[in-house]
Parts: sequence; C-alpha cells; structure tokens
Amino acid sequence: MAATEATNAADEAYDVIVLGAGPTGENVADRAHAAGLSAVVVESELVGGECSYWACMPSKALLRPVTARSEARRVPGFQEAADRPLDAPAVLAHRDAVVSYWKDDGQVRWLDSAGIDLVRGPGRLAGPRRVVVDGGRVLTARHAVAVCTGSRAVLPPVPGLAEARPWTSRDATGAKTVPGRLVVVGGGVVGVEMATAWRALGSSVTLLVRGDGLLPRMEPFAGHLVAESLAEAGVFLRTGVEVREVRREAPGGPVTVLLDSGDEIVADELLIATGRAPRTEDIGLETVGLTPGSWLDVDETLRVTGVTGGWLYGVGDVNHRALLTHQGKYQARIAGAAISARARGVPILESDPWGAHSATADIRAVPQVVFSDPEAASVGLSAAEAERAGYRTRVVDQDLAAVSGAYLYGEGYRGRARMVVDLDREVLLGATFVGPGVAELLHSATIAVAAEVPVERLWHAVPSYPTISEVWLRLLEAYRG
Amino acid sequence: MAATEATNAADEAYDVIVLGAGPTGENVADRAHAAGLSAVVVESELVGGECSYWACMPSKALLRPVTARSEARRVPGFQEAADRPLDAPAVLAHRDAVVSYWKDDGQVRWLDSAGIDLVRGPGRLAGPRRVVVDGGRVLTARHAVAVCTGSRAVLPPVPGLAEARPWTSRDATGAKTVPGRLVVVGGGVVGVEMATAWRALGSSVTLLVRGDGLLPRMEPFAGHLVAESLAEAGVFLRTGVEVREVRREAPGGPVTVLLDSGDEIVADELLIATGRAPRTEDIGLETVGLTPGSWLDVDETLRVTGVTGGWLYGVGDVNHRALLTHQGKYQARIAGAAISARARGVPILESDPWGAHSATADIRAVPQVVFSDPEAASVGLSAAEAERAGYRTRVVDQDLAAVSGAYLYGEGYRGRARMVVDLDREVLLGATFVGPGVAELLHSATIAVAAEVPVERLWHAVPSYPTISEVWLRLLEAYRG
Repeated sequence: MAATEATNAADEAYDVIVLGAGPTGENVADRAHAAGLSAVVVESELVGGECSYWACMPSKALLRPVTARSEARRVPGFQEAADRPLDAPAVLAHRDAVVSYWKDDGQVRWLDSAGIDLVRGPGRLAGPRRVVVDGGRVLTARHAVAVCTGSRAVLPPVPGLAEARPWTSRDATGAKTVPGRLVVVGGGVVGVEMATAWRALGSSVTLLVRGDGLLPRMEPFAGHLVAESLAEAGVFLRTGVEVREVRREAPGGPVTVLLDSGDEIVADELLIATGRAPRTEDIGLETVGLTPGSWLDVDETLRVTGVTGGWLYGVGDVNHRALLTHQGKYQARIAGAAISARARGVPILESDPWGAHSATADIRAVPQVVFSDPEAASVGLSAAEAERAGYRTRVVDQDLAAVSGAYLYGEGYRGRARMVVDLDREVLLGATFVGPGVAELLHSATIAVAAEVPVERLWHAVPSYPTISEVWLRLLEAYRG
Repeated sequence: MAATEATNAADEAYDVIVLGAGPTGENVADRAHAAGLSAVVVESELVGGECSYWACMPSKALLRPVTARSEARRVPGFQEAADRPLDAPAVLAHRDAVVSYWKDDGQVRWLDSAGIDLVRGPGRLAGPRRVVVDGGRVLTARHAVAVCTGSRAVLPPVPGLAEARPWTSRDATGAKTVPGRLVVVGGGVVGVEMATAWRALGSSVTLLVRGDGLLPRMEPFAGHLVAESLAEAGVFLRTGVEVREVRREAPGGPVTVLLDSGDEIVADELLIATGRAPRTEDIGLETVGLTPGSWLDVDETLRVTGVTGGWLYGVGDVNHRALLTHQGKYQARIAGAAISARARGVPILESDPWGAHSATADIRAVPQVVFSDPEAASVGLSAAEAERAGYRTRVVDQDLAAVSGAYLYGEGYRGRARMVVDLDREVLLGATFVGPGVAELLHSATIAVAAEVPVERLWHAVPSYPTISEVWLRLLEAYRG
C-alpha cells in the first residue's frame, strides 16, 4: 500500500510526525524543520518531557546545593558556616522554579518560535505513516514518523508493592516535603542520586540494593567511593538484599518493607528505582506489525528495523540504546539528518561509523555523570566491558588525591580515575573519573574516545596546572611507563 | 674543544646537569634518569621552585576558599551561611600547610627516591658542559646542561618604587596578615588572582591597569566578565592609568601611589605584577657566548640555538615560549626525551610537529586557567591572534547562562564561551570559557585543539546532560548553522 492511499481529504499531512515532545522529540522535529521539512509533535503530557519536569532538571536542582555545600565544607575559612544543615524548603522552592512549576508554556513558545506544530493528546499509529490523536484527529506523514515516547519507571512484581503506592523517580524528584524516613530500592543512578539528595535535605535514608554494590554499570571503584561517602553522610546501605513484600495499611501512613532476610524496615516513603520500560504499550505498534510494549530495534540511523517502507524511527529511550537525555538528543540530531537526507532522496548507509547519519557514539562513547557526592563520571567502555568485547587492553588507574589540583580543590579529597586503552590502536576505549568536581572533566575523555585520539597525541594535550585535569598527565605517564 | 678536554679528575661527571629544581628542572632530570642517564640538579633556593612555594600552590590555596564560597552563595538553602566572611587566619594557615611551611624536605625526598642527585647552591656555567656551584664544586655533563632557572618578577622603573619595597608575586602569595588597603598594579593573571584573593580575605583593594581591560592575553570578554565581578566584590578598578611615582616614608608605614592623572592613592601594601624577567643574569651565559639576563632562544626540542655542540637546553620560563608551570613541565618531558634520544645517538629533527621530541603545544595549544571568580580558561589562539596569524576563521560565541548545566550550577550564572575554527581544515584553533566551574571544562578543548579533531567528529562527542560542558553542543550547532 502506497502512503498516499491511506490519506484522505480530512487528514492533516506533514513531512514528519513526532510522537513525544521530550528533548528527543523536540530535537527530531527541530532538525527536520531546519532542513525544510514540516513537522508536528504529538504530546499527551507536558512539552519538555520527563527530563524537564521529572528527571534531570529537578534532580539536579535538588543535588547542586548538596554538592556546593559539601565542597564548601572541604575548604578552610568557611567550614563552620558550611556545617549548617541545608534549608530544605528553600531548595524545594528552587526545584519548583527550575521545573517552571510543572507548566510548559516556555517550551510551547519555543516550539512555536521554531515553527513546529503541536498537537496535544495521546498519539497512536494507525497503519503506515498515520497517527490518530486521542481517537480523532488524523495526521499523516510524507516521510517519517519518529517514536520518541521515552521510558517510564517499572515496579517489580513484589506482593503489596503497587498497593503501597511507592514513589518512582517522578515522585522522588517532585516531592513537596521531606519524608522523615525514606527507603530507596535500587543502586543505580536514580537510587544513588535520590538517596544523596533526600539525606542531605534531612531524611533518614535506607538504601537497599540487590547486587553487591552501587552504580553497577560503572567501574567498581565508582560504587565503592559513592557508597563510602553515603555511609559517612548517614545513609544506611544494605547490599545483597531483596524486597519480599511491602505493606502500607493506610494511605499516607507508614510503609513496611520486608526483606528476604526476614528484616522489616518501616518508613514514611518508599522509592522504587529498579528499572525502566519503554512507553510503547499504547501507541499502535500492532498496526504496523510490531509488538506493543517492546523496545524498538533500530539501525544506526535510528530507523526501526523490519518496517516496510522505512518510514518509522525510534529515537531516545524507546530504542534502549542508551537511556540518557543527552544520547536521546544526539540520536535526534542523527535521525533528523537521516530523515531529511532520505526525504531529499540522498542515499545513506544504515551504518557508517562516525558519519553524519550514524549514531556511533551510542555504541562507543556514551558519557554519563552521576551527580552524587563525590561525582562519578564515565564514558565508553569499562575495563570489564572492554575485556568482554575482546579488546586487548591496558587499564591504568590513578589516585586523584595525588593530583595537586585535587588536593587544592578540597581537604581530604578522595577520588580515582581509570583509563582503558586499546593496545592495538593505542586509543582510549573508556575513562572513568570519580571525585568532587569531576563532572566537567568528563568531556575531555568523551572527545578523546569519540575522536579516537592516539595516546601519542594526547601526550601533547597539556592539562593546566593546578587543575584536577592533570590526572590526564598521570594516567598517560603511567601508561607510557 | 671536545667535552672531555675540559674535564679533570676532581670534577664530578653526570650525563645531564639541570640548573634549577622547580617543576621543570625536576621533570627534565626525572625523564633523563628514567631513560638511564645520570642526572644532577643544582638549586640555590628551595627544591620545588617558584610554583610550589611562591606561585601556583599558595595562590590557589588562597583562591579555592573564595571560589567555593562564591559557589555556595549561588545555590539555595545555604546562602545565609555562605554570606559570612571568610575566616582569613584559617585560610592563611591552610596556605602555609600547602607550601609545607616553605620547607622542601618532601621534594628532596622525592629527588632521592627518583635517583637524582641534588647540589645546593648557585650554579654557573663555566664553559661548555661545565657548571661550577657556589664558586667551588665543578660538575661536568657528558650529554646536556638544561637551564631551568625560571623567571622572576620585575619592577618597572618608577621613581621611588624600589625604595618603597613593594610586594611582588612572592610576597602576595606569602603574606602572613591581611593588609587593610592593598593597591595592585597589573591586570594580568597575577594581578587579577591576587586582587580576588585579598579582597575576599578582607582587604580594601584598588587594581590599577595601564591598558583598557583585564587579562589582555585572553578574549576580551574574559577581562570584561572578571572586571564586572571584581567590581561587585568591591574592588576599585582603574584602567588606562600609569603609576608616576611611589613614596613610602617609613618601612612598614603607608605607601602613596601617584598616578599620571595626578591622583594619589594611599595604601598599606603595593603589589607590582607587571612583568617577568628570565633568571639568567648570573648563570655564566657569557662563558658560552650568550648574553646574561637574556631569554634563551631554543628550537622545538628546547635546545638553545647557536651553541656549538648542541649540549645546552633552555626549558621552562627561561625560553619565554609560555610562562606557565604546566608548559614548563611539558617542555621538560619533550626535552628529556630529546636529550636521551641524542645521548643514544638517535637522530631527531629540530622540529617535527606533534612528534615525541617537539614541543608543538607551546605554539598551538597552550592552556591557561585563571582562578578568578568567575574562572577564565582558554587554550590555543584567540580570535584576534588567529586573524593576525592569517587563518581564515569563523568565531562562534555562546552565552553560558543559556546552558542548562550552568543554570543549575548557580543562580544568576554569568559566563561566555567562544571557539575559533580554522575554516580551511575545520578544526579548532582555540577556545575560551569564562564562568563559574569552567576550570575542568578546559581540557576538553585542549584535547580538541592539540589533536586537531575535525568539527565533524566533535559532533559525535556528546556532552553529558546537564553539565556546563553542553556548551560544546551549542557552539557546534551554531557553527554548523
């Protein structure tokens, strides 16, 4: 069936239809529009998406005061003042301002100014190149439909859990008051960041982790250093535990968490941060031969595989390549370029490493910063990942505290850095930095990894003295022996 | 005359003699020793040099509390506490600890452990490959003598200035008490950093600058943003002024600074930070045909030009290529490699861009961080320098406050970034970041410039959201239009 056959006079035709107005969807639409294509975005919640209202922005608004205070406590001349507790209502009010009080007027104005149409309501695919919004309005796409509906937190099948109405990441970033006692389940980024924030805001926090450490996707020392620091901040960390049952007798009342060990923990709130699922259950995937609720398989141009005509793209969390806002935006730039190239009839490859239409960084150079205290930042492959991938590697570690810039940054500085070198090509496969003040240091490694800069040339990239970045010199010296 | 002719039985022979035990000299000796050569360092002051006791280390020890406090004042939940003044005695005591109370035992232990000999006393060249220490002990070098004696502050020829015993950088970083009124002359790095530190520690500071702005070697917006911030901190900045005369009636009494405008400023201390001179006056340069007190001309391997036999190297400040500790250390790594290669009879080029024996970064990719508030960080060429050098360039600017990561970093964030692109090769020639928290962001640009990463590939280096590093994305988007 040709695309036009499905179109009738009442339909609204666009070059590109985007489902989901988070940062990923906004960027796909923006790129398409900038390339001269007409674009519409369909959104059932707030324009700006998860990141703007319920994830990155509010979480960092809660965390930055924590970090700034920690850093102030590490310098002389200031410690007594910095030892005072944070003013939680002030921090929460700031968080409210950062999320624009959960209103999307500003983002809508941006869409308007960018020349992108917005249709509010739930959008569903209704066969090839067709989207029906809220069961009524029909949109058709001349060139592409991009699914950018993201992901949502999932609750594990624990008896009593759903009934207890636990917090998920949305509640944890949006809470209006500080719970007296908070149990956090999950040792990944959300669990670690929210344990950090709410502890600093005054909660008594228990962090429950199934595995044997925190931040399991990073180098092991990242989880160790963060766990040590959380413990010093008074977070009660229990590893190797499973939640067997949850009970909340009355709404708003205390919640009891039963562990497989038989222990019970009573708290005021319970945050579940153990996993994400794609928001693809109810977007009509079955009308184009795909399975509702599944992650979307895509090629390097972000085009969904196995869909006749190649008009469907899956960009951002939905494709499960890298569940991070910045990777979604990156994919959006790549997908937008691919959509517009194909619309112009330019033939492009489904995979062309580091080319304009391939999201190669998703595989080779994904950066991530955990805004804990200390910060944990990594890009590319960990030592274990590189080994599993069959590279011949050399792993070099460095104690960050031995770097003058770190020593000057704060008293009692603790941190660690690692680089993983591909011995065959002598380029970096990955790097990890853990310590106060390393968040902005990561991008140096991201460039080194993404640009495959030879170690020999990195030797000429001189770190300014005395910055923490001088760890680069130590790592390279150690590598060169 | 062959080298051996000048040697007699009482002389002590080494492969490499290093004059000056600052970070540069230490690194030359270390590299030579690591390559299997014997090395001795001659030092008349403290092992560790200017940087460790009178420059980088103490200045950053004074500045870090200032920055940490400023950042704390920019976050909610904490401002009242952060508004308290710094405890100056605590900061000064910390500074004393950072410089090891001006004792070099730790550094001497390091030399010992590295297998490098130390001879204390003033060293002077006495003809080719010969150094006499304090008029007695004679050292001879089989392969190289490296002059790493650095630079010192110079006083301009202003009537009354020398007699008034002004502070130079050494006094400004080492003062034991906070002067009530401090006049700083010079708007470069030392002037700006010391005005920042002493103002925050309680001094009333007047900053006098001959030119029309601060930090004249950086992009103009760096000086503008720093001047604005200094003014807000209460520093009285006067640009376009010359000091005509200085008077101090009694030692320890007030000092009067007369300007060419006719104005007089009375202060307790006067810091002169207007220039540096090489410490080469009294090291016997005349015995090898060079001019005492001159900067040393060197090739890309750091070998002094015009000296028969090619045994003399000039490394660090003395060659005037880039008066920065980290560049001195970089040159030391390059020179050490060149010395050991030549000692093994390996022929090397005097210039081999980005090769193992060429200090190419000195010309193309010098990074510098000014630890003011806001921080100012740059690498490579400014727009004006690139234009003067004849490049066909495109200059892209970005307001840092528009980046989410900056907005979250601190309320009222002000900052700016610029990249200078070589349009012919589509690589970065330089980059500048000014704003709170950008010090560690600089190394990303240093790698991009030193590795000549194509803009097309930088597009795949994804900045983590929400960091300040995301300014990279904005700059690249603007460049790609």
